Amino acid sequence: MPYGELAALKEECGVVAAYGVGDDLPGLLYMGLFALQHRGEESAGIAVSDGEQIELVKGLGLVSEVFTTSCLHDLNSIEPKLGIGHVRYGTTGGGGLDNAQPLIVRYLQGNMALAHNGNLANTDRLRREMEENGQIFQTTSDTEVILNLVARYRREGIVTAVRKALRHVQGAYSLVLQSNDTLVAVRDPYAFRPLALGRLGDGYVIASESCAFDAMGAELIRDVKPGEMIIIDEEGLRSERLCEQDVPRHACIFEYIYFARVDSVIDGLNVHAVRRSLGRILAQEQPADADIVIGVPDSGIPAAVGYALESGMPYEEGLVKNRYVGRTFISPGQLLRNLKVRLKLNPNRHVLEGKRVVVVEDSIVRGTTSRNLIRSLREAGATEVHMRISSPPYISPCYYGIDTPSTSELVAAQHSIESIRSMIGADSLAFLSMEGLLQAVPGGGNCLSCLTAKYPQQTCQERN
Amino acid sequence: MPYGELAALKEECGVVAAYGVGDDLPGLLYMGLFALQHRGEESAGIAVSDGEQIELVKGLGLVSEVFTTSCLHDLNSIEPKLGIGHVRYGTTGGGGLDNAQPLIVRYLQGNMALAHNGNLANTDRLRREMEENGQIFQTTSDTEVILNLVARYRREGIVTAVRKALRHVQGAYSLVLQSNDTLVAVRDPYAFRPLALGRLGDGYVIASESCAFDAMGAELIRDVKPGEMIIIDEEGLRSERLCEQDVPRHACIFEYIYFARVDSVIDGLNVHAVRRSLGRILAQEQPADADIVIGVPDSGIPAAVGYALESGMPYEEGLVKNRYVGRTFISPGQLLRNLKVRLKLNPNRHVLEGKRVVVVEDSIVRGTTSRNLIRSLREAGATEVHMRISSPPYISPCYYGIDTPSTSELVAAQHSIESIRSMIGADSLAFLSMEGLLQAVPGGGNCLSCLTAKYPQQTCQERN
Amino acid sequence: MPYGELAALKEECGVVAAYGVGDDLPGLLYMGLFALQHRGEESAGIAVSDGEQIELVKGLGLVSEVFTTSCLHDLNSIEPKLGIGHVRYGTTGGGGLDNAQPLIVRYLQGNMALAHNGNLANTDRLRREMEENGQIFQTTSDTEVILNLVARYRREGIVTAVRKALRHVQGAYSLVLQSNDTLVAVRDPYAFRPLALGRLGDGYVIASESCAFDAMGAELIRDVKPGEMIIIDEEGLRSERLCEQDVPRHACIFEYIYFARVDSVIDGLNVHAVRRSLGRILAQEQPADADIVIGVPDSGIPAAVGYALESGMPYEEGLVKNRYVGRTFISPGQLLRNLKVRLKLNPNRHVLEGKRVVVVEDSIVRGTTSRNLIRSLREAGATEVHMRISSPPYISPCYYGIDTPSTSELVAAQHSIESIRSMIGADSLAFLSMEGLLQAVPGGGNCLSCLTAKYPQQTCQERN
Amino acid sequence: MPYGELAALKEECGVVAAYGVGDDLPGLLYMGLFALQHRGEESAGIAVSDGEQIELVKGLGLVSEVFTTSCLHDLNSIEPKLGIGHVRYGTTGGGGLDNAQPLIVRYLQGNMALAHNGNLANTDRLRREMEENGQIFQTTSDTEVILNLVARYRREGIVTAVRKALRHVQGAYSLVLQSNDTLVAVRDPYAFRPLALGRLGDGYVIASESCAFDAMGAELIRDVKPGEMIIIDEEGLRSERLCEQDVPRHACIFEYIYFARVDSVIDGLNVHAVRRSLGRILAQEQPADADIVIGVPDSGIPAAVGYALESGMPYEEGLVKNRYVGRTFISPGQLLRNLKVRLKLNPNRHVLEGKRVVVVEDSIVRGTTSRNLIRSLREAGATEVHMRISSPPYISPCYYGIDTPSTSELVAAQHSIESIRSMIGADSLAFLSMEGLLQAVPGGGNCLSCLTAKYPQQTCQERN
Repeated sequence: MPYGELAALKEECGVVAAYGVGDDLPGLLYMGLFALQHRGEESAGIAVSDGEQIELVKGLGLVSEVFTTSCLHDLNSIEPKLGIGHVRYGTTGGGGLDNAQPLIVRYLQGNMALAHNGNLANTDRLRREMEENGQIFQTTSDTEVILNLVARYRREGIVTAVRKALRHVQGAYSLVLQSNDTLVAVRDPYAFRPLALGRLGDGYVIASESCAFDAMGAELIRDVKPGEMIIIDEEGLRSERLCEQDVPRHACIFEYIYFARVDSVIDGLNVHAVRRSLGRILAQEQPADADIVIGVPDSGIPAAVGYALESGMPYEEGLVKNRYVGRTFISPGQLLRNLKVRLKLNPNRHVLEGKRVVVVEDSIVRGTTSRNLIRSLREAGATEVHMRISSPPYISPCYYGIDTPSTSELVAAQHSIESIRSMIGADSLAFLSMEGLLQAVPGGGNCLSCLTAKYPQQTCQERN
Repeated sequence: MPYGELAALKEECGVVAAYGVGDDLPGLLYMGLFALQHRGEESAGIAVSDGEQIELVKGLGLVSEVFTTSCLHDLNSIEPKLGIGHVRYGTTGGGGLDNAQPLIVRYLQGNMALAHNGNLANTDRLRREMEENGQIFQTTSDTEVILNLVARYRREGIVTAVRKALRHVQGAYSLVLQSNDTLVAVRDPYAFRPLALGRLGDGYVIASESCAFDAMGAELIRDVKPGEMIIIDEEGLRSERLCEQDVPRHACIFEYIYFARVDSVIDGLNVHAVRRSLGRILAQEQPADADIVIGVPDSGIPAAVGYALESGMPYEEGLVKNRYVGRTFISPGQLLRNLKVRLKLNPNRHVLEGKRVVVVEDSIVRGTTSRNLIRSLREAGATEVHMRISSPPYISPCYYGIDTPSTSELVAAQHSIESIRSMIGADSLAFLSMEGLLQAVPGGGNCLSCLTAKYPQQTCQERN
Repeated sequence: MPYGELAALKEECGVVAAYGVGDDLPGLLYMGLFALQHRGEESAGIAVSDGEQIELVKGLGLVSEVFTTSCLHDLNSIEPKLGIGHVRYGTTGGGGLDNAQPLIVRYLQGNMALAHNGNLANTDRLRREMEENGQIFQTTSDTEVILNLVARYRREGIVTAVRKALRHVQGAYSLVLQSNDTLVAVRDPYAFRPLALGRLGDGYVIASESCAFDAMGAELIRDVKPGEMIIIDEEGLRSERLCEQDVPRHACIFEYIYFARVDSVIDGLNVHAVRRSLGRILAQEQPADADIVIGVPDSGIPAAVGYALESGMPYEEGLVKNRYVGRTFISPGQLLRNLKVRLKLNPNRHVLEGKRVVVVEDSIVRGTTSRNLIRSLREAGATEVHMRISSPPYISPCYYGIDTPSTSELVAAQHSIESIRSMIGADSLAFLSMEGLLQAVPGGGNCLSCLTAKYPQQTCQERN
Repeated sequence: MPYGELAALKEECGVVAAYGVGDDLPGLLYMGLFALQHRGEESAGIAVSDGEQIELVKGLGLVSEVFTTSCLHDLNSIEPKLGIGHVRYGTTGGGGLDNAQPLIVRYLQGNMALAHNGNLANTDRLRREMEENGQIFQTTSDTEVILNLVARYRREGIVTAVRKALRHVQGAYSLVLQSNDTLVAVRDPYAFRPLALGRLGDGYVIASESCAFDAMGAELIRDVKPGEMIIIDEEGLRSERLCEQDVPRHACIFEYIYFARVDSVIDGLNVHAVRRSLGRILAQEQPADADIVIGVPDSGIPAAVGYALESGMPYEEGLVKNRYVGRTFISPGQLLRNLKVRLKLNPNRHVLEGKRVVVVEDSIVRGTTSRNLIRSLREAGATEVHMRISSPPYISPCYYGIDTPSTSELVAAQHSIESIRSMIGADSLAFLSMEGLLQAVPGGGNCLSCLTAKYPQQTCQERN
């Protein structure tokens, strides 16, 4: 249950996979999915194989709701050697059980299961071609398109089939796929979405974020490389390139700013450390004459602590989260609707009263959440509210796996900073600079499209 | 879902009440209970009255599980003027729906509902007397004993009946009771458990903690005084004394240290501010030569931040909580059991690696949780672990509303500090002094029995 | 899910009990309750004791909904020696979990559980007296009144306590009660409601109807006698009289006509055989010039078969019941409401078309069901509809355990037979005579109050 | 919840469809499915279209469990003009939500939904061809094969596409299919499974059995003819032939004997009337010297009544069904397992005691059920048990939509009648003759393969 402005953005998915990790492989996938729950709360699924048959459990709801002791027991009954798992956040119009993953292809001989995080750019064209060719689609998901493409080439073996299938595909994908006896993991050439490789005993694990490895008792080896295809089977692990030419790496910068868990390490950087740095640099760039620093839970806290450390002002818990507010909170009647926000996030009057407050937030999307927040801080006694944003203005939608409002709804795409400040009722408002952001996420190779409105133009696939 | 050592202690209950607060009184009680959920996760209930009839909804589970839109709608259908609510954590042997509150007495003319936080000292004797007198009990709760006592005197009017009934009762109670048209709130003469009075529009609200008032949009007036009986009816609010003589106030100190929400104000002190002070004073008394300070979520965080501020060491998020781990988490098989702890609370390797770490915790109860925690911090790379406890050693059980292990299970009752340090595997271990505690909670009048093993001896009732 | 006119009448309860029947006593009680499900669909409960402690499971819903494998397992975990069970149909205003049975009294030493079928005549007066004496009531059920009375005398031992308690009670009751180690079963002196005694292995069973014994693999010994108290404990079974003087037996005649299952034997008569006789005698008394005989499922079928046998007309299945229509059937919208009746009970056009039809029904209560039924028979092609009722006109409410409409709603209390015939649209209408009824239920001693409006005046208790 | 020997046979499905029937089309489909529930208890689904978009609700469980008021409301929100529904009984290995129907194809432009009763003979070959062609299958159902075939030709319009698709298909199918604006219903050329056409207001309805029309308030027009394709769209209804040449009609004889509801009319014959005749002819062919005739509920009752009428012996309710035993009945422990049968079907001792009994059953499949039944009748006092079967011996599996045990499990395929008699413990055993069967189901054109082990050899499709 995310809070704050970035609750308007939805990560679409998280994936996990395991091969040869010993007993209770379904239990380990469950642990991994539990750690990735923040990447998708709508549905969850696990498919496992013993080398010959594939078993699947999936359903709508949280990981804890979909899986019971008895269904994990059932998955274990085939003594699985490999398996994949998925959590999903539904995009507009694409919800429902039909789109829950993994998706399975049931061949007369052999089966296949696929789970996928990302967003294809050319789904519609691909579907149109395939539909004209007589293919049918039972879902509206990109995943089924990829499955169909792989099926087209399957007689050439699963590895060649995946490689050839993905040549047709543009966009963002970090996917895990299993045939009866082989596990394949692929990250698109731009590496838009994260994907990591780990070791557990004599086996291997794959996950969207390394925090899943901690939950599984596994060890992070490295991130899957852009355009890399990892194949794990009886002969061990091998790595192949999807295409010969490289494209510039475009790993999503918002994984650091907002989506990923603070204990994950993505492409070599710890998320918590990045957020702390964002706050420190923000304090350098955009100081404020105030008494205390507070953050918007959960993701704004590390940046707030960093801002406080750098500025010398004390960090305070000015906003208290009710940890029981989740998806099941019933919608109060009209009379009490205004209380709902406060129930989720209560300004701590004692901390705020008579104080000039710096409030650190990750981003501003629509601005309405910030306006409500600032009003409630003032009602709780804050004499000044200085809003500091730990990223540059969010001005353009994401087409690579994050569900974002359209440009017309993005307040920073439509208004000046002074205008936004006035709308949200802050005494001052300032954003982190692009330079500051890149300083906190060194090394380059990150996708900044939502902050620059410039999108990568071509895929290696097209050039093949 | 509490973490850390003090998860071994269970607050038994939270209560809320409202009179004349306008439309959707059940919705307001629901909001209040939601804010008090941390005081009891086992059952929840709301009773309301329109002045003539009483309606009740209660059930096992979280507030969000027990109440649906339609059942709040049903409660609203009688257009209630007053009502009470309750959340409960079951003590050993006393669980189940039977003991869920409020408890109702259905008279042929008029009804009565009661909800109660606390623990009576003389329940067994009172029950024995009443059973010998032919009274029957359908539950094992103290609440039913109080109900029977009130019933004994009810022809003298509800106010006199409550007063006379409570003369027989020893121990801790903060209770709310409604007849068809009158709301009564009472806090025992020692004031063991918290109880606060607030205003909402033209009406009044009562709650275990003031954070419930924030959730209801109400305003804190003051705490209910020791031995005070507040009566609210058509003629407004009046306050009476339960007994003539005063006894020394004994408000539970652990509400500040652990139980209460940080945004609550209890007896004039904000919980967050107290915890921050505890950490500051702890740093003065028990400094450590280390690199970073971390806290055990959730309650240990403010003290850790305070320790960091005072010590000059940076505060870091060294332990990351999985916010989805709740009561529904299925028990993993034997093979994966050791992963469960890490799933709930993951050491952030990046923060800890190569660091000398101060970890601030509220208390040590059994010691096992701390031993696991310290081991996992070391596995994540901490080179030294210095444990600092923001309260004096916990050496004796509570008899006033907190469910605690017996003395034989309390590690500080059985072992020296050095011995505990060795058992939990810390490089150093130190507790806050009693003086430090009293400095952070000024004013006196707090119950320290669990830290001193000295218990208040007498009640005013006995002297009457 | 009963059909037809008598669906307007609700049996209030069924009880079952077992002592010393070997392993899995809770499973046996479950079997027994399953067989008694028709006596109450609203709630179900089982209490068992191992001689020292009592365990209870109860809930709202069908037997199959309330009990799970795991909760029967839990009940078994104490290795129970005795237990009681209950199914309940809620009367107006008395629904809800509070009134589910068995009801338990939890003494400091020893517990007690009680389950009860019947309706007390002097509940209000008894409650008033006890309330004035300071007793409290948490439910609105008669059962709690009896529990309080028993508690009043409990120091004299459970047997004396029950005897003395029941001296205060007037009305109908067939009850089972257990202390920690003793099972007591009592049938009121009038014997209004049925109660039977059976044997299973070395132990004993008690149930409202003997069909429960079949389901438990037990053997019917005999009915419990009017005013008999059966006590079963370590020393075996003994029988006592509740009071010295006899009152005239008044066993409910409608158990034979409608309530009981056809495979039960009540007071020596098999229910199926009685219904068959009712139909035969009805055919003799009220012949019809028609082509076929049909019955209203389920209870009207045996009488219809009897009518057909006697009349020489063929019995046909003219009304087909949908066996899936139960309590969970969702209420169709306004447009489809008229279809609901047909969904439950579909006239079989092929059987009815062009035929003069005798339709045999148990009783007429409000008349509306019969009007709808006759209209649908005509729509399905019946050229004439001759309604024959296998009991005399129902003219007065029951005060002895059956929930009936008030006299003003009983069509036979307000209108002549010819007038009813006209209202329901039958070509002819005739009722069984009182003589016919008594011929089919020989031996006398049945309560006919609902057919005569004459009620028994006095109880033995009053004379004591 | 079927009883008796034929519970070993499972009808695979029931279908329903509606076009232009006015408001609340989803509610009408729900009513129709409710009436067809006996044809499949595992899953249920409804798809509706407003001419542009298709909405689908499906799930595991009974109709009453899958559909809620709110989901019917949701289906209504698009103001549908046409829709289809399905209930399913899962065959071995084909269970689960994946195989629940209707199955949907989601095209970029336009969608399609299909529901199907039957069993294709050449599924494996068709799947293999399509898989080699790159098609993928997400389920193991025949339905997805048909969908893929239709998709292959869809650019030629839905009607041509269905016709061409079905040319590839051999076996049994009664299917309903909808594109956005057109409803198509097809019955295979052999007419193995039933399918009927009805009228409702200005619109049309289709269903597996006419009892669904009664539940929908619709009127039976006629059965869909062998090899007929009915198309309903804005221009009304038209009928086409699937293929030019005729094949001999093979409508399943067991629909009359066992599967269909007694109030259905199939191919002009009422099911109840047929069963009654089967019993009459059985009595002529195989008389018994006995006292009473009883039937095995539910399907054996009409034949028993017929047998009794013809023989002059009285029909009695010797077996009493517990109408609450359904799918949710929990499995009793080992100790009580033998009680389970009696709980479902209780011999009525009073009726049976000292009697020579004729028991009429539909068929004998494995024989075990009959052995248990006969033993329990003897235990209840029957002095002789003469079993009469209202169909010829069942000797060969069905390949046309009924899930049957293999030949090795069919007792009549392996043993002589005398041997079976001995195994089941009957005093005498006799079956209806083939001539007798054909006399009761006049007109010819029925599939008798399971009784003759001769199967139709060719389909018209193959000749095209």
